[in-house]
Amino acid sequence: MSIRVGIYGYGNLGRGIESALRQNPDMTLAAVFTRRDPATLSLSTEGVPAVAAADAPLWRDKIDVMILCGGSAKDLPEQTPALARLFNVVDSFDTHAEIPAHFARVDESAREGGRVATVSVGWDPGMFSLNRFLAGAILPDGADYTFWGKGVSQGHSDAIRRIEGVLDARQYTVPRPEALAAVRAGEQPSLSTREKHTRECFVVAEEGADLSRIEREIKEMPHYFADYDTTVHFISAEELARDHSGIPHGGVVIRTGKTGKAGEHSHKIEYSLSLDSNPEFTASVLVAYARATYRLACEGAVGCKTVFDVPPAYLSPKSHGELLSTLL
Amino acid sequence: MSIRVGIYGYGNLGRGIESALRQNPDMTLAAVFTRRDPATLSLSTEGVPAVAAADAPLWRDKIDVMILCGGSAKDLPEQTPALARLFNVVDSFDTHAEIPAHFARVDESAREGGRVATVSVGWDPGMFSLNRFLAGAILPDGADYTFWGKGVSQGHSDAIRRIEGVLDARQYTVPRPEALAAVRAGEQPSLSTREKHTRECFVVAEEGADLSRIEREIKEMPHYFADYDTTVHFISAEELARDHSGIPHGGVVIRTGKTGKAGEHSHKIEYSLSLDSNPEFTASVLVAYARATYRLACEGAVGCKTVFDVPPAYLSPKSHGELLSTLL
Repeated sequence: MSIRVGIYGYGNLGRGIESALRQNPDMTLAAVFTRRDPATLSLSTEGVPAVAAADAPLWRDKIDVMILCGGSAKDLPEQTPALARLFNVVDSFDTHAEIPAHFARVDESAREGGRVATVSVGWDPGMFSLNRFLAGAILPDGADYTFWGKGVSQGHSDAIRRIEGVLDARQYTVPRPEALAAVRAGEQPSLSTREKHTRECFVVAEEGADLSRIEREIKEMPHYFADYDTTVHFISAEELARDHSGIPHGGVVIRTGKTGKAGEHSHKIEYSLSLDSNPEFTASVLVAYARATYRLACEGAVGCKTVFDVPPAYLSPKSHGELLSTLL
Repeated sequence: MSIRVGIYGYGNLGRGIESALRQNPDMTLAAVFTRRDPATLSLSTEGVPAVAAADAPLWRDKIDVMILCGGSAKDLPEQTPALARLFNVVDSFDTHAEIPAHFARVDESAREGGRVATVSVGWDPGMFSLNRFLAGAILPDGADYTFWGKGVSQGHSDAIRRIEGVLDARQYTVPRPEALAAVRAGEQPSLSTREKHTRECFVVAEEGADLSRIEREIKEMPHYFADYDTTVHFISAEELARDHSGIPHGGVVIRTGKTGKAGEHSHKIEYSLSLDSNPEFTASVLVAYARATYRLACEGAVGCKTVFDVPPAYLSPKSHGELLSTLL
C-alpha cells in the first residue's frame, strides 16, 4: 500500500516535495496544508486537496507521514513539536546551534503521541552532516572542512533586500579556490571565515539611490557580510531576472586524515553536491527520510530521530535482497 | 569499559587493524589469531598474544568482536560463518556476485550463535556501496557511475606475476579522464568497460625473457586485461621497489539526476576517496563497524548486517548529544 504523505507549507520546498513524490511510486500525496486560504493554492497534482492548516488534526488517520516545509526561524520551532503529537513528521530544521533543543522538544512530543519524527533533514544539516560524521568515525586522526557554494543564500539575499534603496538582490556564497586546494592537498590548514568563502552580491537599486551607501551597508553588515570579502554588482531588474532567477547551491565536505604505525599514510574523503535547485534537492532528501520515518513507525519506534539514527536501508523502496545483489 | 577486539589473520589488513585500534581509545586489541605458528608473529602492540587460529574457541568470552582479515576467495566463505557462531564478527568479503549467498550463510550461523555479524565492510563494498545507495534513494530519476583508481589492484598484479618470465609486477587501474568528465557533466553516458578505465602495468622480467610474449600474454588475458586498453612498462626490480612499493587506491562514485515538474533541474552527488594505503583505510572502516557490531549485539540484535543496516550513530564513540551539537 502506498505511503500517504502530507505537505505542510506550500512554498519552494513544499512544491519540491510535490515534484519529488511523483518520482517515488511507493508514495502518494494525500493533502497539502496551508495557513493561507486553501482556495488560493493551485497544486500541480490533480485531485489532491489543499486544506487549512488548522484542520490538520482531522487528517490524523489519513496521513502516514507529514513533511513540514516551513522556515526554521519561526515556523518549525512551533510546528514540529505540535504536529509530532499527531503525525509521523519530517522537518528540515537548519539552525545548527538550536538543533539539540529542537530535538529535545520534538522527542518529547513524538513520544507523547507515539509517533516518529525525523528532524534536520536536507543537505546541511543532513547529507553533509552524515558525511562529516562517517568520515570522522573512519579517520579519527584527521580534520574536516565544509565549503558551501557556489550557491544562493536566501538569508543573505533577504538581508540585502532590507537595505533602504534596494529593490531586489541575489547573494552567492563562493568557496575560495586556494582554500579548497590547500584542504585537498591534506595540509589541514587553519582557515578563518574570510579565508574560506567570499560573498558576491547582485543588487537592483531604486533609481537615484545612493549606490555607494548601499554597497557600504552591505559590506559592513555584521554577521552577514562584515567577516567576508564581499563584492557588490549593481544590475538591472531585467538582468537579475535573466541571469539570477535560479536557486542553485552545493558545496563540499572534505576530511583528510592519517593512518599507519606512525601516521605515515594520508587519506582524503570528499563528498560534494552540485545542485541546480536547492529546495528541490532538499525536498528529495526529505522524501527519502519520510519513507524511513514511516517504516520506523510501522516497526513500533517512537521519538525523535536524525540522519545519524536512521538505518540507511529504510530510505529505499528496494527490498533488502535487491540492495545486497545490486548495490553492495 | 573498552571493547575487546580480536584480529583473525595477520597480513596487510590485520596489521592495518592493529594500527587503527590505537587511534580508537574505546577499543583494545585482545589477541591476534593466526594459522601460522604464533611464535613467528611479531606484533607491534606490546603485551598482546598471538594465538593459534585453532584455539580461537577458547577466547569466546574474552573477545567482544572479531575482525576477520582473510581473503574473499578462500578464507572468508568458510571463516565468517564458522566464527559467527562464536563471536560477533566483521569481515570485508568483497566478491560482489557472491554477497547474497555469503550474507545468507553468515546470517544463519550468527542467529544460531546469538551473535551479530557485519559483512562486506570496507570501501567497495562498503562506503562506496553506501554512497551509491544514498544517492539513488535521494535521486531516483538518475544514473550512477563508479570509477576506481588511480590505484593498485592486488588481484591483477598477482595475475601478471603468474606469467612465465615475470619476477614481480604492479598493476594500476586508472579512470579515463574523458569518461569522468562526461559523467560529471551530467550526460549520463553509456560506458563500456574499455571506456571507463585503462590498466597500467609495471613488470620486472627475468633476464633474457621474451618481453613481447609477456606483454602479449598480459594484454590478452581474459577477464583481467582483454577488455581494457592496457599499457605495459618493463622496469628493474630497483625501480619497482623505489616507485611502486605503496598500495594506494581510491575512486569516485557519482550520481547525476533530475528533479522538478518536468525534470528541468540537474543535480550531481559525488563521493571520492584518495587513499595512500588501501589496506589501512579498509581497516579503519572495519574498526568503526566493529564498534557498531558490538553495540548492536549489546542491545540484543542478532544475525547478519551490512552497511545498509547499521544506524550511523553506532559507528562513533561520541554520545548522541555530542553528535547533535557538533556534527549535525
